[in-house]
Amino acid sequence: MINFIEGGVCAAKGFRASGIHVGVKTNNTDKKDLALIVADRDCSAACVYTRNVVKASPLHVTKEHLENGQARAIIANSGNANACAPDGDKNARRMCLAAAGALGIDVNDIIVASTGVIGQRLNIEVIENGASELVSKLSYNGSKDAALAIMTTDLTMKELAIECTVGGKTVKIGGIAKGSGMIHPNMGTMLAFLTTDCAISPEMAGKALARAAEVSFNRISVDGDTSTNDMLSVLASGMAENDVITEPGDDYCEFAQALNTLCTELAKMIAADGEGASHFVTCKVSGAESETDAEALSKSVISSTITKAALFGADANWGRVLCAMGYSGVDFDQESVDIAFESGEGRITVCEKGRGLIFDENFAKKILTEHDITIDISMTAGQAECTCWGCDITYDYIKINGDYRS
Amino acid sequence: MINFIEGGVCAAKGFRASGIHVGVKTNNTDKKDLALIVADRDCSAACVYTRNVVKASPLHVTKEHLENGQARAIIANSGNANACAPDGDKNARRMCLAAAGALGIDVNDIIVASTGVIGQRLNIEVIENGASELVSKLSYNGSKDAALAIMTTDLTMKELAIECTVGGKTVKIGGIAKGSGMIHPNMGTMLAFLTTDCAISPEMAGKALARAAEVSFNRISVDGDTSTNDMLSVLASGMAENDVITEPGDDYCEFAQALNTLCTELAKMIAADGEGASHFVTCKVSGAESETDAEALSKSVISSTITKAALFGADANWGRVLCAMGYSGVDFDQESVDIAFESGEGRITVCEKGRGLIFDENFAKKILTEHDITIDISMTAGQAECTCWGCDITYDYIKINGDYRS
Repeated sequence: MINFIEGGVCAAKGFRASGIHVGVKTNNTDKKDLALIVADRDCSAACVYTRNVVKASPLHVTKEHLENGQARAIIANSGNANACAPDGDKNARRMCLAAAGALGIDVNDIIVASTGVIGQRLNIEVIENGASELVSKLSYNGSKDAALAIMTTDLTMKELAIECTVGGKTVKIGGIAKGSGMIHPNMGTMLAFLTTDCAISPEMAGKALARAAEVSFNRISVDGDTSTNDMLSVLASGMAENDVITEPGDDYCEFAQALNTLCTELAKMIAADGEGASHFVTCKVSGAESETDAEALSKSVISSTITKAALFGADANWGRVLCAMGYSGVDFDQESVDIAFESGEGRITVCEKGRGLIFDENFAKKILTEHDITIDISMTAGQAECTCWGCDITYDYIKINGDYRS
Repeated sequence: MINFIEGGVCAAKGFRASGIHVGVKTNNTDKKDLALIVADRDCSAACVYTRNVVKASPLHVTKEHLENGQARAIIANSGNANACAPDGDKNARRMCLAAAGALGIDVNDIIVASTGVIGQRLNIEVIENGASELVSKLSYNGSKDAALAIMTTDLTMKELAIECTVGGKTVKIGGIAKGSGMIHPNMGTMLAFLTTDCAISPEMAGKALARAAEVSFNRISVDGDTSTNDMLSVLASGMAENDVITEPGDDYCEFAQALNTLCTELAKMIAADGEGASHFVTCKVSGAESETDAEALSKSVISSTITKAALFGADANWGRVLCAMGYSGVDFDQESVDIAFESGEGRITVCEKGRGLIFDENFAKKILTEHDITIDISMTAGQAECTCWGCDITYDYIKINGDYRS
């Protein structure tokens, strides 16, 4: 039994958070740009990183710090990605030192992350100067502040929490996330920080996290661009007092399933807040030969620029959907494919056995004018299915990204 | 010695062409929508097709007709792709029959192609009714009419011709092409029809054509979408009276090189006319470990939506260039990478050894405001290089593709 609950990244026992403005974002002096999440005790920790060959400095430093599978706190800034930047590694280490010093803990127990413009020197001085204020603002109700402080072009704050039962104990998992542009499947993920009071070994936490990334963040796309800074981490405090999970089994399954659910909902929040997006798009492929096939087909459709432009125009141009399936790398018989569009307004089948149907264009337009749209693809190749999420491409995407740095 | 000449697809000896409006395009009664190219004698013929699993009906029919390596004529319509359409194969065959009947030649000697909306029934009756007029308009100066008749969202007509010397004889190669959206590397290609008076076997013509597609059309991208209808064909009449090319050697090299040059220039015309584009973008990668690596890196950059949006805004956001290289699938050391922007206004290096330089933003903006922009990436991994071509993404791309069908 899984329930959504309040509290975000502070929902689980033993986690405080804060978020303040220190001046990394120079254009927006009222916008928070530095976040801190701290556990009351040492945690099992695991992290998934971007698969981009070019990795931001904080990822290298975090990887070092997590070698022992333990961490205590996360410090993250927005407004500068600290990727390909002068003194990048040095400044990522200084961020950790600033947090460790103000918290009075070991620097090796700090996870560090950054998000924002690539290639510019991080203003580390304002972060160092702000560290003690950041610590003084820590609160067991601080999730929202931290969630706000990691936003860049995001329009919505992304926090969520869930509770489940593991070994007879109530376990909570919560998280905050950010992401709006430079979002594409086949990655580690964007920035998302999760906390839980579940007692679990670092190895099993890592295993659960990797799988959760696969079925959630790796199934969304905003623009096909995999960022240099993507990072998903979990801190597990063990304060739920369940028997420590150290191997696969029922307890692990309970925890992993709740983690998958949480990550999937956070991922959908990112896709729905895609830069400039006017539609949230769900693409479900069923009847595929394998889950891998279903995922590749669905991802190809939600990533197709020309399909996304059609959805922006509420145009039932299903030929582009079939075309995107065709270049997904999956071999299939086009005559095995039916396509329908669905939303709160209803459902319309537009393609049967790979051929166009004559359909009511006005009704199709009405369906596609809704904010939440589903492209429902059914095939007769097998039993496997997969759902991926994305958004349309709009004038505003171009506007936002034509002038992001200034 | 290669020279560009006039005459397009009729430049080579023995080719006539025509283009008329018959009514496939219903919204634009003044726009041509049916093209014919006819050789005076039987030709060696070869074709390269889209790698999209979903292939339009004309491609299946053409493949059958080219089994014997011979063809005489090409009929092509715009306004309807005849892909995933009811009675698709049947209508593609009827198009061939209409052309064969009006020309008095064997139906198996016809190449057929279509381009336009996917999934709608082709209005075959207007094509059949127009066939005799189409034949009556054939002319040795008809290249422009045919080029106009295959355009869809293209703003510019694409025709080009070249002459070279093969075995002491002057050989001409000409072509017309169309393409503006749904354009992405790793494909057969878009619609492009080439003719030559070179005497060459179908096998060698096919070999040269496949390589030409690789180094030209497969190195451009407009929007990352590989179409269902891409097709590149060559007809070789042999009327240049050179010794028939039947194996690799000097003659083959001369011909192949000229063909590569012609295809590269036609491909660049397509990239420059990308839907809604305001910039033509060249991305050169040098110093890579292999040509395959250089091509993958360059393609990834020209295909990156977020980089294209930055170029639309004339924003020197080189971090996105490095980021796109990072998810190209090529493993490389980011510290081996220098990046410069270049145009008629000058050149500016913005990244050295993978790190951002402090540079004159106003000068960079001036460079990037030009229509033709080069992203020059030099690496220290090896000696290989590759150039790919693309365009920016603009409000107009969204506009064109948000409402393409109506």
